[in-house]
Amino acid sequence: MLENKDTSKTDISTLGEFGLIEHLTKQFKVQHKATLKGIGDDAAVIESKDPMVVSTDLLVEGVHFDLSYMPLKHLGYKAVVVNLSDIYAMNAIPMQITVSIAVSNRFPVEALEELYAGIATAAKAYSIDVIGGDTTSSTSGLFISITAIGHAKKEDIVYRDGAMDNDLLVVTGDVGGAYLGLQVLEREKQVFKVNPNSQPDLDPYTYLIERQLKPEARKDIVQLLIDLDVKPTSMIDISDGLSSEILHLCKSSKVGCNLYEEKIPLDPQVISSCEEFNLDSTTIALSGGEDYELLFTVKQSDFTKVKANPHLTIIGHMTPEKEGVHLITRANTKIPLIARGWNPLEND
Amino acid sequence: MLENKDTSKTDISTLGEFGLIEHLTKQFKVQHKATLKGIGDDAAVIESKDPMVVSTDLLVEGVHFDLSYMPLKHLGYKAVVVNLSDIYAMNAIPMQITVSIAVSNRFPVEALEELYAGIATAAKAYSIDVIGGDTTSSTSGLFISITAIGHAKKEDIVYRDGAMDNDLLVVTGDVGGAYLGLQVLEREKQVFKVNPNSQPDLDPYTYLIERQLKPEARKDIVQLLIDLDVKPTSMIDISDGLSSEILHLCKSSKVGCNLYEEKIPLDPQVISSCEEFNLDSTTIALSGGEDYELLFTVKQSDFTKVKANPHLTIIGHMTPEKEGVHLITRANTKIPLIARGWNPLEND
Repeated sequence: MLENKDTSKTDISTLGEFGLIEHLTKQFKVQHKATLKGIGDDAAVIESKDPMVVSTDLLVEGVHFDLSYMPLKHLGYKAVVVNLSDIYAMNAIPMQITVSIAVSNRFPVEALEELYAGIATAAKAYSIDVIGGDTTSSTSGLFISITAIGHAKKEDIVYRDGAMDNDLLVVTGDVGGAYLGLQVLEREKQVFKVNPNSQPDLDPYTYLIERQLKPEARKDIVQLLIDLDVKPTSMIDISDGLSSEILHLCKSSKVGCNLYEEKIPLDPQVISSCEEFNLDSTTIALSGGEDYELLFTVKQSDFTKVKANPHLTIIGHMTPEKEGVHLITRANTKIPLIARGWNPLEND
Repeated sequence: MLENKDTSKTDISTLGEFGLIEHLTKQFKVQHKATLKGIGDDAAVIESKDPMVVSTDLLVEGVHFDLSYMPLKHLGYKAVVVNLSDIYAMNAIPMQITVSIAVSNRFPVEALEELYAGIATAAKAYSIDVIGGDTTSSTSGLFISITAIGHAKKEDIVYRDGAMDNDLLVVTGDVGGAYLGLQVLEREKQVFKVNPNSQPDLDPYTYLIERQLKPEARKDIVQLLIDLDVKPTSMIDISDGLSSEILHLCKSSKVGCNLYEEKIPLDPQVISSCEEFNLDSTTIALSGGEDYELLFTVKQSDFTKVKANPHLTIIGHMTPEKEGVHLITRANTKIPLIARGWNPLEND
């Protein structure tokens, strides 16, 4: 599908730069009043009385994604979602994104249409205006750079550096699934190489594969926190793995942490697949990454507000900085937590 | 310098992703009150009562720049400037940028330090806060994605679509220089390949080379327009060439245009180099690109305010849309203007 050998596919050079941008972006209509000007000028214009929150990510083919098992539509969706997740992690509402892509000419126009269809689907699902971007050629591969802009009242914004000793550590949803989904897809890719006619039974892994290929950002949590009348003292999203994110919160907030192994929320598919792959589920939960759940701290006095909520799990508590950051195992031993999250700079 | 064969250079993987980002960005201190939070959280936070103006560009090695004659420090500087130019083209003041880069591991840390030194120099020169970004590996080459954010009162923002019949067409500075600078550098690269000991005499081309390697955005024009008490009816920056930008203004504003060849401002080095390279200077001015001057329209009634200003040249006037977009030559013939600006999608 991707290689432009099929003569029925349209070479991107036939549209020209401006033609291609217009072709791909004409579907994006502005829906927020705050977006005074979207695509079509030197810059977009946004109006807001509240502060704006800005985050950016660059996704690289062969580093962040593998097109042999990542459909382009899913990739477009995921590229948007990972950026929105950073905005939600500030307790803000994302409203606008810019999308820049660089592609080699092995991609026909139809492939880019698929990518943009995924971007459009995510924009619709999360009520986002696509307000600008850039489309250019690359000498090899596909690069996607997205900047997301969110809005929040100044007093509602949650930073990484507000956690205090004794605060409770809370995670949304469950963790480790996205990484295991990647392992399943990698295995199927190898099987496919040996036998292209094999029909994999992916039913036992549907949740894991969806976590990897079509992750969702936790847009529900901002509202949930309002409903619970809880303002986190610090917050971060889980993109690199639970342990890496806990260490970020602790470093920024100058606190330590005790994380309880038995409390870490795992989906049954994570547990069964870890057994099948002979992997330790705690290691996967700590280091897997790409879960796009939110990790935050709340005051002890908010305990009753969060304890019974099905979306939230209390997994530990903060300690004085000098006590360090530890995992308390099921056997009640104390192990220093280290960041083993995925490092994209070691992959090439 | 770029190839990491020298063992005294530092491999980027030794710092890790977070270490590298911290190493490269620790020099950036927030200077604007509007920047509530810069680098170091899931997202940056910006406060402004006025609308914000957002623009983004993606620069690709081998497409937008050639590291064989573009020093990395200059590249960092230019990457910032081309984005700021888009903000000035909205009649806004840029205050923040995010910077994302993807690099292959052939770049040592020292090369990225050079790139970031150029980014820092531009940020200082234009009073810009670097508020975030992303650093990752690429499978090949260097990619730079910058998003610039500017601020302007709603009533001061100038769009592309406000030009009216009879408005005057005005350009800042002079055009064509950056393209000729590129021709000089390309020629020297070929000479160097044949004879690495040749000592080129670049004195006759200093202005042209500077236009190509170290362009400046017209930050002075926003203030100049205030001083002259002129609000343009439409504005755009010249990144792709004068003719391409005129066509953009005309298309957005639904007007035609008469552009007068004899009025197009050319630097003496542009004229002499065109003779030397046997190029038509008008063609270069129309199609050269990368000048980062501003092109705008003003009401006829503002004629006396702009006519004698050394930074501004009236080069034409707008007409009804049905009359089309034309170049009026020195010989007084009327030639339809076509966009021959540089098309980055045809380059691969």
